[in-house]
Amino acid sequence: MATAGKVIKCKAAVAWEAGKPLSMEEVEVAPPQAMEVRVKILYTALCHTDVYFWEAKHQTPVFLRILGHEAGGIVESVGEGVTELVPGDHVLPVFTGECKECAHCMSEESNLCDLLRINVDCGVMIGDGQSRFSIDGKPIFHFVGTSTFSEYTVIHVGCLAKIDPEAPLDKVCLLSCGISTGLGATLNVAKPKKGMTVAVFGLGAVGLAAMEGARMSGASRIIGVDLNPAKHQQAKKFGCTDFVNPKDHAKPVQEVIVEMTDGGVDRAVECTGNADAMISAFECVHDGWGVAVLVGVAHKEAVFKTHPMNFLNERTLRGTFFGNYKPRTGLPGVVDMYMRKELELDKFITHSVPFSQINTAFDLMLKGEGLRCVIRMEE
Amino acid sequence: MATAGKVIKCKAAVAWEAGKPLSMEEVEVAPPQAMEVRVKILYTALCHTDVYFWEAKHQTPVFLRILGHEAGGIVESVGEGVTELVPGDHVLPVFTGECKECAHCMSEESNLCDLLRINVDCGVMIGDGQSRFSIDGKPIFHFVGTSTFSEYTVIHVGCLAKIDPEAPLDKVCLLSCGISTGLGATLNVAKPKKGMTVAVFGLGAVGLAAMEGARMSGASRIIGVDLNPAKHQQAKKFGCTDFVNPKDHAKPVQEVIVEMTDGGVDRAVECTGNADAMISAFECVHDGWGVAVLVGVAHKEAVFKTHPMNFLNERTLRGTFFGNYKPRTGLPGVVDMYMRKELELDKFITHSVPFSQINTAFDLMLKGEGLRCVIRMEE
Repeated sequence: MATAGKVIKCKAAVAWEAGKPLSMEEVEVAPPQAMEVRVKILYTALCHTDVYFWEAKHQTPVFLRILGHEAGGIVESVGEGVTELVPGDHVLPVFTGECKECAHCMSEESNLCDLLRINVDCGVMIGDGQSRFSIDGKPIFHFVGTSTFSEYTVIHVGCLAKIDPEAPLDKVCLLSCGISTGLGATLNVAKPKKGMTVAVFGLGAVGLAAMEGARMSGASRIIGVDLNPAKHQQAKKFGCTDFVNPKDHAKPVQEVIVEMTDGGVDRAVECTGNADAMISAFECVHDGWGVAVLVGVAHKEAVFKTHPMNFLNERTLRGTFFGNYKPRTGLPGVVDMYMRKELELDKFITHSVPFSQINTAFDLMLKGEGLRCVIRMEE
Repeated sequence: MATAGKVIKCKAAVAWEAGKPLSMEEVEVAPPQAMEVRVKILYTALCHTDVYFWEAKHQTPVFLRILGHEAGGIVESVGEGVTELVPGDHVLPVFTGECKECAHCMSEESNLCDLLRINVDCGVMIGDGQSRFSIDGKPIFHFVGTSTFSEYTVIHVGCLAKIDPEAPLDKVCLLSCGISTGLGATLNVAKPKKGMTVAVFGLGAVGLAAMEGARMSGASRIIGVDLNPAKHQQAKKFGCTDFVNPKDHAKPVQEVIVEMTDGGVDRAVECTGNADAMISAFECVHDGWGVAVLVGVAHKEAVFKTHPMNFLNERTLRGTFFGNYKPRTGLPGVVDMYMRKELELDKFITHSVPFSQINTAFDLMLKGEGLRCVIRMEE
């Protein structure tokens, strides 16, 4: 391509300081270096994690920064040593990577790559410790190796999943973070068998994706748990058969669920990050075979506690990161599930805005409206 | 048999009150009723659980009682409805049963039978709420449905595993409780793959049986953890490659193990019942794929606690009861493993006494000497 090897000038939404609206700027994007890929982003979506690091509460702030990590795009050019991708390939950037060489990547079970595991504090490329973004020569920090709120971005090849070019990027861009996280928690970790009962704690996009996994698995009963009664109606589209609001009951919600299900659900997936919800999710699974899966990220002082007998009665508790998907190896198959119409994605998209209105997506999320707002980079 | 349908008079070691030596008595053993089997016990062993309920601390004492549950014997006669066993069959009594009809028995994963799950407070047969033991017409309570400290005992058919008659009962009697509990925790629940590293917390008979499971699985490194340094030498026979005494280290033992193993062991099995050991066992497994299994029974006020991030980094915590073996379905295969010389049992037997000296077995256990004392019912 004509742009390969050259600096590209393009639009990016830059976060200048914590909590202030992003500012649309012309930035310079340097060519990809060894093992890097420059990607033209076509669609990106907003995820809570972007908002969390944009608000930068209880954090060491990293600004100027280009946020964004849930996206889909097309390879513009590749750096030295990149053999798996060529210009024109359709890709999903992922905030955590897969080097294919470390102990984690070699393990069948783990996706916690030693080289490319998520690093929220790092604002530069790992190869040379430099940023590829600048404005008038002043570097702008990257975000979780993706920075998709830019028309072009540079990403390590290990953080890019090559997908079916027929897949509509305005839909499958959602698979690059939240939806895969929830879906994989159910399909890869909780693994409900057909006819099982499943409880899902927290009915945001991740929780509803976990619910979608339960629906796809043929769960006979799907119990949604949320403190917000408004979540019930929406959850029905995702297979929710029962809704429990812990505020409606005097007894702990795990006891309510155990009574509803004659001993407990077969599987529970917790997507709130609240330690009490984690405990409830674990204690509401059936003895003998129940499995609870933790997805939500708890705060630093949080403690999970329970009586050991709850384990001895043959319950299992597991945690998962990014739904246990290895980004490069696993995501193409998730895209294929969508293409085969097994996985429904469209129902997660409640809003869509042009890139110029990206701050609207932030407003919607801060108000708790909708599930996913897709941002169209090209008007 | 000539005795079928009749009361049998025989010797039994009766516990008259908490903590007092057992007394050898002539007892009357009634014929088996519906779904019951009368068994001639040939060998029994002493397990900590017998001592626990004999000491009866912090319990509602149940006396007079015939203790004993780790044993091997031969069917003398069967009650109405028993079709799976006939007189002469070799059996292992088990303190927890398998009805083959409840949801747990129908589940591939659970052995927590609804009908015959262990009940330590029950001193009678579940069929009619009566005892089959008496002295001069005065009933004597059963213990966990087995009461093997008697030459004859009556047991629900669901609590008897029919085994290979060629198997030496003086050895395989150990499989009726402790050894299967530890072995199954490793083989059925932790499931280490060949070459993995395994830590075992608590090197009593159950912990050493868990270690035996690690040895059989081809573990590359087996780390024994015990507060008693004397346990190291014995553990070597069970494949122990490294020994860690938490008392020898200023830092928590999980940190010591993580350092020793470059990130943690692949599997940990906790066999102490101490909540701190449970936490250590969980926190010493590797992120990404580590599995910790809890075997020990904690006291009522115990709390398991950890930071949720330890789960989110893809660790799994499971508990197990009786090594997840279904007694009737699973134990015959364990006996077969011994017969094929895959499982070594003889090294667990450190003492052997005639029935008349059963109190010696209690003395040895109270002093912490040896692993298993086999009691020979026939001199």
